[in-house]
Amino acid sequence: MKLYIGNKNYSSWSMRPWLVLQHFGIPFDEKLIPFDEFKADQPFKMKMTQISPTGKVPTLVDEDFVIWDSLAICEYLAEQNPAKPLWPLGIQQRTEARAICAEMHSSFQTLRTLCGMNIEADLQEVGQSLWNEHPQLQADVKRIQQIWADRPHANSFLSGDHFTIADAFYAPVVMRFVTYGLPVSDNAKQYMNTILAVPAVKKWIDAAKKEHLFLASQERYRTAPADASTL
Amino acid sequence: MKLYIGNKNYSSWSMRPWLVLQHFGIPFDEKLIPFDEFKADQPFKMKMTQISPTGKVPTLVDEDFVIWDSLAICEYLAEQNPAKPLWPLGIQQRTEARAICAEMHSSFQTLRTLCGMNIEADLQEVGQSLWNEHPQLQADVKRIQQIWADRPHANSFLSGDHFTIADAFYAPVVMRFVTYGLPVSDNAKQYMNTILAVPAVKKWIDAAKKEHLFLASQERYRTAPADASTL
Repeated sequence: MKLYIGNKNYSSWSMRPWLVLQHFGIPFDEKLIPFDEFKADQPFKMKMTQISPTGKVPTLVDEDFVIWDSLAICEYLAEQNPAKPLWPLGIQQRTEARAICAEMHSSFQTLRTLCGMNIEADLQEVGQSLWNEHPQLQADVKRIQQIWADRPHANSFLSGDHFTIADAFYAPVVMRFVTYGLPVSDNAKQYMNTILAVPAVKKWIDAAKKEHLFLASQERYRTAPADASTL
Repeated sequence: MKLYIGNKNYSSWSMRPWLVLQHFGIPFDEKLIPFDEFKADQPFKMKMTQISPTGKVPTLVDEDFVIWDSLAICEYLAEQNPAKPLWPLGIQQRTEARAICAEMHSSFQTLRTLCGMNIEADLQEVGQSLWNEHPQLQADVKRIQQIWADRPHANSFLSGDHFTIADAFYAPVVMRFVTYGLPVSDNAKQYMNTILAVPAVKKWIDAAKKEHLFLASQERYRTAPADASTL
């Protein structure tokens, strides 16, 4: 099974199924296709359009079966590994977990547009300005904190005592909140600390910080550092 | 089990789980909350924020359990009705069906913004202009036709000989293609005719056409007809 991903520093969608595979110990190979400007004649699209009908990451390839959407990848992994609790076991908890994953798919456009994942960056001043200028950003963060606050208790994951697909879907949001220093409640901070302590999350972050590849197409706010590889 | 929906003429997201319930003969009550301008002090939000954490439709309420996302609603219905083939039976077909449903959730922003569902309207001239002016609209329609063309044969549904959740997710797209007269291949037209012949789809369309409620907030292109109820 091979998971095609983008840069670990930038690719929030890649992070989600990667965390699920890593956390639950499902054997896989990863293949990182570096982001560029996504033009048809650049390496990323030339490679990914050969692999996936949407030409995007993440894409999971299991022998010759191709899955090009992160939620469908996670559902597939859950079905293929019934002994592992990728979803919560109770139907109501599982349904709520699916609802917040789907909400991540369909919503939070302002957060996703203004505060792109950028794990190695410190953009707290930028975040402060964005926060003051964009009421919709505040609304997105408010709803996310509401979702997090619905978890069973302050030290738990979203659906209970174990990390599930739902937590994998919100882990990149934790990364954004950290990078941009968005103001959140103590309750939300507790959840963020819980996520940041998950070994699979730590492993992703460590790899992201070692990439040192500055991609102008992914940077709305930073200018290339003098010592960075750039594209 | 009660499904909260918006106006059948306009609410594409409501249509999806409604079709699934109706087509598979799952008993439910529907509660239509008419759209307005979605201001906090108007009836729609005053009602739906009491029901659902997002204050949106569709929302399914099963006794006291609330599900506020259309894909999670469909997954729940599939789990609660294992004898009914809401999803395709093969894991690869089921995974592909989930991938195209999730893609509907996350993509096609241009189509969804420019060509809002409006079943009773005839906006073919508008559609022609939009088509000429918006390359991204053409790209959205191209990808949708590609998804449809991947079905097993020209007269089949998306995953085979039976209507599934995937078809319910693309039925509102069929309605948009009709209303705006978007240029599509013969193969796509065959799929559209297949969907338009499904009794549950016909029932929704008939009800939509009887609403005659002209909502300015949902109309980018029409002016209120003299004989319409308006808001």
